Amino acid sequence: MIVDLDQKFTLITEHWRPKIIASLNGHEVKLVKFKGEFVWHKHGVDELFFVWKGSIKIELRDGEVRLSQGQMFVVPRGVEHRPIAEQEAEILLIEPVGVVNTGDAEPSEFTAPTTFP
Amino acid sequence: MIVDLDQKFTLITEHWRPKIIASLNGHEVKLVKFKGEFVWHKHGVDELFFVWKGSIKIELRDGEVRLSQGQMFVVPRGVEHRPIAEQEAEILLIEPVGVVNTGDAEPSEFTAPTTFP
Repeated sequence: MIVDLDQKFTLITEHWRPKIIASLNGHEVKLVKFKGEFVWHKHGVDELFFVWKGSIKIELRDGEVRLSQGQMFVVPRGVEHRPIAEQEAEILLIEPVGVVNTGDAEPSEFTAPTTFP
Repeated sequence: MIVDLDQKFTLITEHWRPKIIASLNGHEVKLVKFKGEFVWHKHGVDELFFVWKGSIKIELRDGEVRLSQGQMFVVPRGVEHRPIAEQEAEILLIEPVGVVNTGDAEPSEFTAPTTFP
């Protein structure tokens, strides 16, 4: 199945709700629209962020990473982070099957089931 | 480490030589410039192709997949394929650590060590 990123993003209307668009070897590729401030959390696995459109900031406990269109960054397993997007941004995530978006944080309105677009 | 795709591609001068730009959970993200016809081969793992610039064709034994900028496709494990690019194209690959680009094909001038850009 051919996946067109721009076409898939047009189907996504909510923020912070990852949608699975591909899977390989126990990993999933997800698309998410970011807007505003997410919650601090961490995962037991590495998580790749790739900015397709817009720009984001990933706060870390010891600094921050600013990513613009065409840039990627891997948040290593166990590292607390908080994604922020002042303007809506289109993000591609890669992580193992079954990762919950809010990681170890208390379940909240940000906690999303990962579904297909 | 922040990775900028356009910046990394400027460092790649050869065709069909994957360069590792990120790794996560036993997988690697690689950039490759395609031009011309590659060799038929298959891998024991799933392989994701994402077109960053240009367009490519992936021949399969029972058809072909045409991908243009912003489109991705996963070649499932065990499926023979042959990538082709009439014009130079910039491709992002995701696959497990240690995959050889020519898979099960006889080693040839296309067989490349995977290195950093």
